This record gives sequence, C-alpha cells and structure tokens, in this order.
Amino acid sequence: MSNCTVTFLPHNRVISVVSGESLIRAALQAGVHINASCGGEGVCGKCRILVEKGDVLGGLNEKIKQDESDKGYRLACLAKISEDVVVRIPVESAMDKSVMNLQVTPRRTATIQHMDFESLKEEGLFIPPVEKIFLTLPPPDAQNNMPDVTRLIEFLKHEAGEHKLELTLPVIQKLPGILRESGFQVTVTLIRPVRDDGKNLIVNVQSGDRTAYNYAVAMDIGTTTIYGQLIDLATGKCLAEAGDFNSQISYGEDVISRIMYAEKPGGLDKLHDVVVGTLNSVLVKIIHASKVDREDISTITFSGNTTMTQLFLQVDPRNIRRAPYVPAAALYPPFSAKMVGIDINEHAIALIYPQISSFVGGDIVAGVMGSGMYRQEELTLFLDIGTNAELVVGNKDWLACTACSAGPAFEGGGIEFGMRAAKGAIEDFSLDPATYEPMLFTIGDVRPKGICGSGLITMVAVMFEMGVINNRGKFNRDLGTPRIRATNDIWEYVVAWKEVTQLERDIVLTEPDLDNLIRAKGAIYSGCMTLLEEVGLNMDMVERIILAGGFGSYIDLEKAMTIGLLPEIDPARVTFIGNGSLMGARMSSLTNRIRKDVVAVTQKMTNFELSETPSYMDNYIAAMFLPHTEIEKFPRLKARMDARMKKEVLI
Amino acid sequence: MSNCTVTFLPHNRVISVVSGESLIRAALQAGVHINASCGGEGVCGKCRILVEKGDVLGGLNEKIKQDESDKGYRLACLAKISEDVVVRIPVESAMDKSVMNLQVTPRRTATIQHMDFESLKEEGLFIPPVEKIFLTLPPPDAQNNMPDVTRLIEFLKHEAGEHKLELTLPVIQKLPGILRESGFQVTVTLIRPVRDDGKNLIVNVQSGDRTAYNYAVAMDIGTTTIYGQLIDLATGKCLAEAGDFNSQISYGEDVISRIMYAEKPGGLDKLHDVVVGTLNSVLVKIIHASKVDREDISTITFSGNTTMTQLFLQVDPRNIRRAPYVPAAALYPPFSAKMVGIDINEHAIALIYPQISSFVGGDIVAGVMGSGMYRQEELTLFLDIGTNAELVVGNKDWLACTACSAGPAFEGGGIEFGMRAAKGAIEDFSLDPATYEPMLFTIGDVRPKGICGSGLITMVAVMFEMGVINNRGKFNRDLGTPRIRATNDIWEYVVAWKEVTQLERDIVLTEPDLDNLIRAKGAIYSGCMTLLEEVGLNMDMVERIILAGGFGSYIDLEKAMTIGLLPEIDPARVTFIGNGSLMGARMSSLTNRIRKDVVAVTQKMTNFELSETPSYMDNYIAAMFLPHTEIEKFPRLKARMDARMKKEVLI
Repeated sequence: MSNCTVTFLPHNRVISVVSGESLIRAALQAGVHINASCGGEGVCGKCRILVEKGDVLGGLNEKIKQDESDKGYRLACLAKISEDVVVRIPVESAMDKSVMNLQVTPRRTATIQHMDFESLKEEGLFIPPVEKIFLTLPPPDAQNNMPDVTRLIEFLKHEAGEHKLELTLPVIQKLPGILRESGFQVTVTLIRPVRDDGKNLIVNVQSGDRTAYNYAVAMDIGTTTIYGQLIDLATGKCLAEAGDFNSQISYGEDVISRIMYAEKPGGLDKLHDVVVGTLNSVLVKIIHASKVDREDISTITFSGNTTMTQLFLQVDPRNIRRAPYVPAAALYPPFSAKMVGIDINEHAIALIYPQISSFVGGDIVAGVMGSGMYRQEELTLFLDIGTNAELVVGNKDWLACTACSAGPAFEGGGIEFGMRAAKGAIEDFSLDPATYEPMLFTIGDVRPKGICGSGLITMVAVMFEMGVINNRGKFNRDLGTPRIRATNDIWEYVVAWKEVTQLERDIVLTEPDLDNLIRAKGAIYSGCMTLLEEVGLNMDMVERIILAGGFGSYIDLEKAMTIGLLPEIDPARVTFIGNGSLMGARMSSLTNRIRKDVVAVTQKMTNFELSETPSYMDNYIAAMFLPHTEIEKFPRLKARMDARMKKEVLI
Repeated sequence: MSNCTVTFLPHNRVISVVSGESLIRAALQAGVHINASCGGEGVCGKCRILVEKGDVLGGLNEKIKQDESDKGYRLACLAKISEDVVVRIPVESAMDKSVMNLQVTPRRTATIQHMDFESLKEEGLFIPPVEKIFLTLPPPDAQNNMPDVTRLIEFLKHEAGEHKLELTLPVIQKLPGILRESGFQVTVTLIRPVRDDGKNLIVNVQSGDRTAYNYAVAMDIGTTTIYGQLIDLATGKCLAEAGDFNSQISYGEDVISRIMYAEKPGGLDKLHDVVVGTLNSVLVKIIHASKVDREDISTITFSGNTTMTQLFLQVDPRNIRRAPYVPAAALYPPFSAKMVGIDINEHAIALIYPQISSFVGGDIVAGVMGSGMYRQEELTLFLDIGTNAELVVGNKDWLACTACSAGPAFEGGGIEFGMRAAKGAIEDFSLDPATYEPMLFTIGDVRPKGICGSGLITMVAVMFEMGVINNRGKFNRDLGTPRIRATNDIWEYVVAWKEVTQLERDIVLTEPDLDNLIRAKGAIYSGCMTLLEEVGLNMDMVERIILAGGFGSYIDLEKAMTIGLLPEIDPARVTFIGNGSLMGARMSSLTNRIRKDVVAVTQKMTNFELSETPSYMDNYIAAMFLPHTEIEKFPRLKARMDARMKKEVLI
C-alpha cells in the first residue's frame, strides 16, 4: 500500500494517507470538518465534496446526480483514496478561512507500546524462569551405583555448574524409568528461584533432548474476558493466543456482584469451578493451535484483579467489598497448577501475579511490570480505565497507587444513548464551527445506533472547545441550531436525526449525560491528583502516561485532555499497552528478572484508599468542570480557547 | 517385688533374683546347669533339686514322692523363689567342683538403650521441626488494611522475631475466615527448615490458642510390620503406639518378592495402595487411642528400608534387585502426606528418612540417627540382623555401611527344627559338662516344639565351648552320649526326646543346621570385617556395638561372640535399641537437629557393595569356623577354652 497526498480546500490542509483510506476519515485526520451524519452508509448525502484534481474511487450513489458526478462531486464517506488528490469542501455559510481552520486538534490515539522483548534481550534479561538442560549421564555400574537422583544432582553440579537443586516427588517417581528408557540421556526442567539465595527446582525430567521444546503459558483472568498466550521460551515468541468470555459472567457482571455470589453457600466453589472451566478451554485452544506437547509446558503465569485472583484460587473474597477492604494476600506462593484444577501436567507450576490491595490487583501489577514503568526515571502515570479505574504513579524509585469508581459512563452506562464499543457506535465526531452540524464516524461504518466511550469523550471535547457546551456541562442555548433543544425540560444536542440512525428516534446527547461523563472523568482526574498530592507532587509533573485496558486504545488523547480526563501532556508521551495484564504475565514467563522485581515492586507500592483520604472530595469537586476549575492546568487548551475567542470577537 | 539370694551348691554360686522368678531360670542366670528338657512343664522330672535352707513356692508334682518332698526335693522348673534360699543340685557323676564351675558364661543380653530424650533436652536440642505460635494480631482498620497474609507475616517478623517465612496456598485459603472467626487471635504452625538458610513454612493456621496441641507421628514401615507412634511435641512423650502387619505380605514375604510383584502390570500401584492402607489403619489407631485432633498433627516421619520406601512412594523399585543395585533416591523432599494417600489433613507434611543404597535404607539411617552413634567419638558397629543384615561402622567423623545376605537361619529358616521366636521355641540352653544332658528354656515355659534364632546361637556356643561341636561345626563322635547320633548318615544332637516335646519326634540339631548357622554368622562377621578393612581398620578396634531389630534383644551376647557372630567386646559395651527405625523417626519428630544432621550423615556415609569387594570372599571363608579361623581374635573365649582344656587334662 502506497501513501497518497490529500489536499483539502478551502482549508488548504494537506495530509498523507494510505491508499484505500476513505476520504471522510482522511478529513477527520486532517482536522477538516465535513457534515456527515449517517456513519458512512451514504444515506444522508450530506458529505458531498468536489474533486478538483486527481480522482477518487467510488463516492457515487443516487444522492449524486449525473451532472454533479461529471463536475467531480462525490460522497466523501463512500470515496476511497487511490492517488494524490485535491478536494474542495463546499462551505455553505460565509466564513473566514481562519475560523474554518479553528478545528479542534486532530485525532490522535496513544502510541502502542509492544512488549519490549528486544530490550530485554539486549539487557541480558531474557533468562526465562524455566530452563531445560540436556544431560548425558554416565550409566551406573558396579563401581558407581549411587541413587538415580544423586547421579542426576551430582552431574548437574559438576558438569552443568548448577547448585542449590531440589526436586519434587513426581520427578523422583519418573526418574528411574526415564533414565533407563533414554539410555541416561535426559532433559531436566529447572525452575529458577525468585531470590538469589533460593533453590533451583527440578520439576520435570524427559527422555532425550527436549531443550528446543520449552513453553510457558500466560493468562489474564479478566472480569469479562480471559486471554491466554502460549509462549516459546526458546525464541520468546507467542505461538498462539486465544480468549473467551469468563463464564463467571452468568453469576454477575462486575466484581462486586461476583463477590456477593461467592458469599452464598457453595458460591465460592461454583465461581472457582466455572472460571477454571474457562481457563481450561482457553488453554486447550492455545495448546491445540500451537501444536505443542502439554508435557513441555512448565509454568502458567496468571494475572487478574484481586477478586478474580481470589475466586480462581478459592480464597473467600468477602472482605474485598467490605470496609476496610482487605484482600487475603499480596504474594501467593508458586504451586502445582493441577492443584487448583488446571488441566495440565503435574509438574506445571502456577505463578500468580501479586495483589496490592482489594482494588489494585495483579492485573495492574502485571501492567506496571510489563510496561517497564517501574524501571524508568520519568514520573509516569499508569491508568487502566473501566468502571473502576486503577491508577499508579511513580518511577523506578517509588510507586503509589489507588483505585476509584468512575462509574460505567466510559462503557456506555448512564449515558442515554451510551453503548459499548460495537458496530454502529459513534466512535469519532467533528462539528462544523459555523453550523454546528456534525460529522459522525461509527464502528463498522454503518448508520449510528449509539455512542461509545471514546466517541463520547471526543464529542464532548469538541463541543466544549467550540462553545456548544460550557465548562459546567451545559449547552449554549443561543446558537440558533435546531440540534440544540429541550425535551421535557432536559437540554440536549441531536447527534443524529432518526432518519439516518438504526433506531426509531433521534440520537441525542443530554445534559444528564454530560453530568455523568464529568463525574466519571472527575473521579479519575481527582484520583490522580489526590494520589500525587499524597506523595507531595502534582499533575504538572507527570512526564509520561501509560494507558492500559481495551478502552485506552481508542481514546483521542488531546480530547481526553480537553475534557480533563487526562492531565495535559505531549501526546507523544502517552503510550497504550493494550492488555497490560496479559503483557505482564507474558513478560514474567520470559524473564526471571520480572519475577524477582515484582516482589520488590509489590512491597514498594503504596496503596491509598481514596475514601480514607480527606483531600479526595475537594479534588473531586474541583474536577467537576470541563476541564477543571483551574483551566490553567491545561495551558494548550487555554491557548486554543483564547485564540478562538479572539477570532470570534474579530468576526 | 523384693530381691532374694539364691545359693547353688555344690557350685557355691550365689545370685540375687527378683522374688517370683523360677528357680531353674535363676540357675541359668547363675551359670549353674540343671538337667531339664521339657521346657518347664514338669513332665520330664529331671530338674529335681534339694532345698537345704529357706524354702521355695511350689516345685511339686507327681514326679516328687512325699518322702522326697519332705526331705526338701523340688522340681526346679516349677519352683518359684520367694525368700533367700540355699539349694543343692544332685551331681550324678563324680566331678571335680572346678570342672563343675566350667559352665559357660551366664546369659547376658544387651542393655536396652532407650531414646535419649533427656540428653536432647539438656543439649538444648529439643526443638521440634514443628512449632506452634499463638498470635494476637491487630485487626485491620481504615488506616491499616494490608492483606491478611501480610498482616500475619509482618506481625510474625516484628513481634515474634520470625523471618524467612513462606506459606502454602491452603493456609491462604483458610486465613481470612479464621482471622475473623477468632477475633484475630490465631495459632500458626511453622515447619522449621532443615538448613539454616532455609525458609520457615507456615503450614497451618488455627483459631485461638492451640500451642498446647502440637503433635507428630512417627512411622516405621517394616517389610513385615508397621509401627506408628503419636508424639506430643509439647512434652516429647509418646501418647500412643500401634502396629500391624504390612498388608503387602500377601504379595510376597521379603523385599525381593515384593519388587517382583511390583514389576507386574499394576503391581506397583497395588503394593502402594495396600501399604498406605496399613499405614492409615495404624494412624487411625494411634489417633483414636491418644484422642488428639487430626488437625493438630503437622508432620509424619516415615522410615523404612529402600524397597518399602519406594513402594510407599510409588517409585518403581525394579533397579533395587538388579546389579548394580541402584535405588531411586537418597533424599526425598518433604511433601503433603495427603498427596500419597495418607488420610490426614492437607497441611501435614511427610518427612521421609533418606536411603543410602538399595540395601541400606531409611530404617538403618533412622537407627543410626536415633542411637546417636553418628554424634559419638567411639568406633561403633551398628548391626541390624535379619534375613538381610545391615551393618554400619564409624563414629562422628566418618561412617561406612554395607548389607549382606545372612539367609534366614536366625529366623528359623534352613534349620531343621528352626522356628520364629514364638511359644514353644527353645530360647535358652545349658549343657551338663559331664553328661551332656541339656537344660532347655522355651518361650512360654511349655514343652518345646522347635529352636528359635537366639536359642540356636546359645546352643551352638555352649556345645562348642564344651567340646561337643568342633570349630568346623562337626559333633564330637566320641562323647559316649546317646544324644549324639547319626541318622541317615547325618550327625545330630538330640535336644529333646519326643516324649517331652509337643511333636511326634525328637527335636535335634543337625550338622547341616550347624553349617547354615555358620554361613549366616560368617556372612555377617565377614561383612563387618570387610567393611572395616576397606576403611583401613579391623574388628579389634570396635569399641561399641549397637544392635537393632527385634532379634537383637534376645541374643545372648557372650554366646554370639563365642560363635563369632559378633566381635568379642565387653558385653557392657553392647546396647540394644529395639526398633531403631521407629526410634529414629520419633527422634526426628522431636528435634530438628536430627533432620539437619541426617542430610550430612547421608552424604557422609560410604556404602560398600560386598559383591564388588574382592576381600569379602576371603573374609567369608575365614569366618566359616567357630568362631573364626583365627581364635586369637576372640581372646576371652580362647582363655576359657584353654582353661577348660587344662582342667580336663587334669581330671
């Protein structure tokens, strides 16, 4: 795929896009508004543009008559870019070009930070916790008939330089047979200790040379979804990945309802059983897909939030949801994965990511480990946003964390037309600065049926910056657009008229929706502020932001800063790690350094319970504005707002 | 019971015995011969004696007429001593008093060495591997809501001075509930590490103060019998003991036939299952008898020979019986006893006594540890005599061991009238130096039906010393007693005429019996010699002998030296420890020092395979005499033989 240059007139904006991109998405990227409300199905016919130079593919339907087509008119949502092209947006109202260019900032999502495997290798840290060593032992004879285990240990000591060795009963049970069937040529599997003074545990012995077949499994136990990866420890590669819904969903959507179920008689066992069921089904999938021998898997690293971890390990979670919110354990010892019902060989060891507190669990610790923030100098803010948001701030010297209840707004809850990020959800949005007509983008490019979290953030940010919404989340009633109206005394903006939706009614954004969004972003922002203040710092000092969790990948960073969800920093300094929990589990499988470090990180990380921190409420109230009571905390936004103000005054 | 003095005339021997002792046993103890062949039932009437001063209880039946009774005649086997008494033995032949006193040495069995618990206490070594600590934890509150496990560990560190703590998943599973039901007053059970740099493992947590209820189980897995003891770790006392036949007996009497059975399909699992069955039945008995709560038992220490250990742990034993005789392991890791089928709480840890070689197993190591020989300065010979004899020599600086096949002679096998030590077995024996008439003692004081191992040793020793048997195990054909005769060309001594036996025929001791006995004792003695020679020492240097196993308690030590089974040392320096295996298992339960030391002992002990030691055959041939080709190795015996020779020459 080649790159093509698209020039938008009269704005005179130029953007380079990959050929095949739709013209309307190119406009969005360029920060050029084109009225569009049907999500790209071509039914509203509003997104017509004029191709002045070069040509596009498609862009024609019954909304463009033949003579218009001949002149070069096309529907932007149906047109694909295949060569350099110059297009003109028909500007209906008389408008100063400079105002026209007062578009909000272009959409910019976080850079994806992949697992930094190469740097691990470079730092010499690619030493998996599991190692296989092939040995050719001298067979016993009359002069040397030491016990089989002693023969093995002595050889490992003197020929392989391995010390502090221990082995398990199942290995002893297998050893005599395997030594003799293999002619004393065997592969031993060692699990390295977490501490330098620990033991090397021999967990398996196999016939012949099996060093090339050394695998680990990483599993993320999410409240909603469970993911597993099968990892080749010889190469560091992920051979297979699979996911499935956590079967516990039938017993409650969120952790609190799961805990309540677990408190019923037999409830804990039931939830344990069903999550183990899902884990086993994911395990089967990745073993099948990667075609590895189950016998060659020696560790399974599990990461999950505190409730998921306790339910998986059959540890009563009732104290998690009751003040003072006490989890059972921070660190869990390694144990045989089979012991908790995982369908794997006896020697496979379960390694559990440690928990910090009832609401900052192993998934977050895994993200902190996987992202490497605990090894870096910069003051980093780690954010996993969901119904509960978990926040970690710190660097290589210190770490502090907290969790806050953001409510379900980012997942579509409490928003009249809110929905999860699924087909038909409005995920991006632009507004004509003069007419207040919208440009809508939906997941799947179909007619809209709701608004997902990232769409909501963008929509509110754009409207706020264009003065459609004020800093208290109220619509400007004086704009003279029929899209802003009161229905039953509730003010709302019509995002899409019912004719272009999949619904029987208009899709609107209401003032109560705005309230809920402000509460959600305010909870998170004030959580970060409180956390930083507790350690004597402030938000201005944040040098880097790491977003984890599915939501993070879609957020338009500048818009998130505009509404005050994130502190204002250079978007280049925001990275997205995706499923940080799975990344951390995979990283631990690959390098024992992470396993060693995680103990120190767990002990070092200070947890703050916001409910016990008096300043939280003050910070929360201050954050109940767009972007905040103190706009000075958002200097770039302030500059844009000031500039727009001047321009508008000039007109 | 008071002591009474018995004076035997004309020998003029005086002995002090406990009142109630039979007169004939007193004579035996005094080294005074009285003809007696019916085992104490009073049917032969030969043991008549004359009470000259004082009186005895009983001693009368139809064999003593009224007038004889009036004169003071009694049957020694039926008479009980109740006061000081002077009795005269009718000497039928004219005999010099000095010859009369050429009785062999009086019977002397080994001093029983009990478990030296007091000295352990004095040395400050009574530190059981399991300790219970009662803690009153501060309950969590908003300012202090660390995880339950962290709370426990921190408290143990800062308030109880415990470090290097680890805990198991089952403890984590129990902890939240127990902390809250007990109001945060709990007892933790710690298993101490074997090595100083090891971890203290928290295996259990209980509600309230349970420090007074801390128990361990010691189990000896014998090929024939299984014994268990329930031990109170607070006091060191054994609260209950029980034994049962090892159910594996149905699958073979000895270790070799068990191994052969284990090699059949399903055989190993079967033998594992049945021995676990017996172990569980013994466990139930001692738990029931001691009335302790199963939950309060935290360790079970098992000791058994190599085959018994491997069968119990389901480790294929086939290489034990095949050259070069390789056992699976020396040291076994601790593991949950439940894991191998023991019916006990999940937290109870199985501790397995280590093995040295295929034929020197955990039972012997336990005996070495329990007897304390590995901590002492003296050169000690440790002997466990059975079909297989295991030998250990050494002291606190070094240890060497071997095993030899003695054959079943000491258990009655290969001896025409041989039998196990049961009712009716001739267990002691004396011979009239002039008439060669015997004095027989049977187990249960009933008419004889066979000869047990200890009886055989005494019988052969007495006959050898009196010149009835020569040093090659042949009867003196010229003694003019009808008891020495040839039947079908096989020479024999009639121990009991059929009239006084429980059988329909004479009980005899044959020359083939003597051959078998000499082979058995020769195998053991030459085993010891070879072992000592291999380490550059010789039998004269042995300063102490420890006998283990049931057989040891009955052996007449001086007689065992006379036949050359044991090297000649002061009998006071021979001790009997009984079931050394059980003693060692119990000792390890009581003091962690033993557990620490046993690793060093196992590594230090050099095993010699006699079949691979060329000098063994030479030593064996030299030992195929009574007591040995070189009688100089037995100076006390030589002196007695020389003295007897002179006396006999004088007559």
